[in-house]
Amino acid sequence: ADAYVANMKGVILEILPAARIVDVSHEVAAQYVAGAAYLLQTAYRYFPGNTIHVAVVDPGVGTARKPIAVAARHGIFVGPDNGIFGRALADQDALDPATGELLRGAAVSLSNERYWRLPVSQTFHGRDIFAPAAAHLGRGVPLSELGRQETVLARLAGQEPIRTGDDIHGVILHVDRFGNAISNVPGSMVTKSVNVDLGGRIVAGLATSYQDAPLAAIVGSAGLVEIAARNGDAARRLGLRVGDPVVVRPAP
Amino acid sequence: ADAYVANMKGVILEILPAARIVDVSHEVAAQYVAGAAYLLQTAYRYFPGNTIHVAVVDPGVGTARKPIAVAARHGIFVGPDNGIFGRALADQDALDPATGELLRGAAVSLSNERYWRLPVSQTFHGRDIFAPAAAHLGRGVPLSELGRQETVLARLAGQEPIRTGDDIHGVILHVDRFGNAISNVPGSMVTKSVNVDLGGRIVAGLATSYQDAPLAAIVGSAGLVEIAARNGDAARRLGLRVGDPVVVRPAP
Amino acid sequence: ADAYVANMKGVILEILPAARIVDVSHEVAAQYVAGAAYLLQTAYRYFPGNTIHVAVVDPGVGTARKPIAVAARHGIFVGPDNGIFGRALADQDALDPATGELLRGAAVSLSNERYWRLPVSQTFHGRDIFAPAAAHLGRGVPLSELGRQETVLARLAGQEPIRTGDDIHGVILHVDRFGNAISNVPGSMVTKSVNVDLGGRIVAGLATSYQDAPLAAIVGSAGLVEIAARNGDAARRLGLRVGDPVVVRPAP
Repeated sequence: ADAYVANMKGVILEILPAARIVDVSHEVAAQYVAGAAYLLQTAYRYFPGNTIHVAVVDPGVGTARKPIAVAARHGIFVGPDNGIFGRALADQDALDPATGELLRGAAVSLSNERYWRLPVSQTFHGRDIFAPAAAHLGRGVPLSELGRQETVLARLAGQEPIRTGDDIHGVILHVDRFGNAISNVPGSMVTKSVNVDLGGRIVAGLATSYQDAPLAAIVGSAGLVEIAARNGDAARRLGLRVGDPVVVRPAP
Repeated sequence: ADAYVANMKGVILEILPAARIVDVSHEVAAQYVAGAAYLLQTAYRYFPGNTIHVAVVDPGVGTARKPIAVAARHGIFVGPDNGIFGRALADQDALDPATGELLRGAAVSLSNERYWRLPVSQTFHGRDIFAPAAAHLGRGVPLSELGRQETVLARLAGQEPIRTGDDIHGVILHVDRFGNAISNVPGSMVTKSVNVDLGGRIVAGLATSYQDAPLAAIVGSAGLVEIAARNGDAARRLGLRVGDPVVVRPAP
Repeated sequence: ADAYVANMKGVILEILPAARIVDVSHEVAAQYVAGAAYLLQTAYRYFPGNTIHVAVVDPGVGTARKPIAVAARHGIFVGPDNGIFGRALADQDALDPATGELLRGAAVSLSNERYWRLPVSQTFHGRDIFAPAAAHLGRGVPLSELGRQETVLARLAGQEPIRTGDDIHGVILHVDRFGNAISNVPGSMVTKSVNVDLGGRIVAGLATSYQDAPLAAIVGSAGLVEIAARNGDAARRLGLRVGDPVVVRPAP
């Protein structure tokens, strides 16, 4: 809607004219870092291994939060150190989600002003720090040149589902444009004969296609349990919103 | 809004790093295949002849509907066999709209798993079947390699305007972001001295510019009769929605 | 939402297959030329100097308004002659905002039909005149080939803030997707100890980060005074809309 994204692309292309730039999403709710973390988790693995992933949901811009770049198996991740890369990095076994400790790869804070666009705005590090860092990395500048080594990254708390006896307690992480309500419960934690409890409303069993039932739980394309309505908008029908609780339990 | 489109682009770029990818629209209403068919009809002819057109409005994903690729004069069309390409193919004289029979070109169902991305998700063939097929076609794999030959494609019924005496009965196919309500009546079927009847509200004559009248019928950039308001939103003003009837008749 | 943008890109790529195309925004309110002028002003300077900037907010399409191309320091600007480039050109000292006189660079009206896409639609010069002109410029056709020289461009009136004694009277130019309400008052006109009067509601002082205060005036990334809410939507909270008056005055 604004020129912010274009500003970043212009800065990247000025430094690296051959850059290939692919948009993931510009519709994460304002300040919803966990939503961006989810989208990054669902996106990174489909890109070539030399991809530089840039993410800017950055309510702390202008404060002490660090700008970072993290090299992992599936590319380099550039953005604010606010937990935005936690899901993608944990998914690659690069980060301990409980401690924020980097287990594999390398991380730096982007402290080397030589790779900033000056003057740095107090409100838009995407344009002035992250975009130039990504472009310089793309043209071969080594990660270690960009700043000081970091070993522990900021974490987003409360992102993992919790098992209590046979129950798995999760939350709705994202509602997609079809109205599918996607939880943080991995399909690998559940079997076909489960009930999904949405604040008292029970959805029985796991479906294998969006056409299977008027309202169904299904393991979606990101490998997470989601609630879907056949040819309809499940989130609107059930009044589901990001953050709502989801309990998956064995069918009685 | 989601990472679905980016997933497809990542898959394409992994297979064909030199691919040029252009977005047409990601805002077709969920499951509205006819809306996508309209957008494809208005888009395909402006692209170079070697373009591969990928479309994914796919409510039947995971069911028996086939994934297809169709080579026509204006490029290759890749997506679900649910009528989504009907308007674009009929427009190129490649498809008989009444029977779904392919009159020119060639079609296959994408049955060759060698060109799938495995494992194939049950909910997202765009990423796992259509995107890889498009990329492999782009790097020169022959259409016939991708699967079994098909000669009859699925059709969307009720897409063509019907002539009854001097009246032409159509429907609103699409409301664009300016609020122009675009019908399925081709400009070639009408003359300047017509009335357009929108459920009792009559718009008289055809205008030649959006500035001509407060409310006007005009042959728009896609060659179809549309209802437009000068500096305003005609659909909102008249309460017009996709699917509403439109009757064009000679002025009395 | 529509295929209009894709049509333009297809036309460009047909003429200039190597074109790099970057989207700035497709969500300017319909007919809001001043909003596009603002976005262009905030975007152009971040792109390489050989960029061709195409803009189409064109309520006068099909009337006597001219299609133009203007070569300035930061690239060539192609679109309707309705003031859409006024802010960007004045910003580069290329245009006198008070008279519309071109002070530096060169301008032509796109009168040479040889560089049009024929037949030219009466409703979409973006596709049939601006996109081909941009592509031909990109492949090296000289500006002077495209049409007649122009020395005075159309202006948008009422775009500059007005100083009355110590007060600066401006307006809200744009509300961004975070709800920041951006005025037309440059940060260079104000000091830290100002009050910003929004129709009687006073915001005191200038902040240096979005986290500084629940509600703050801040010089944003475009160098203009904007009203922002910490982790919130200032425009919604204060009921601010495009066109609302803003008065900046010294704190008492």
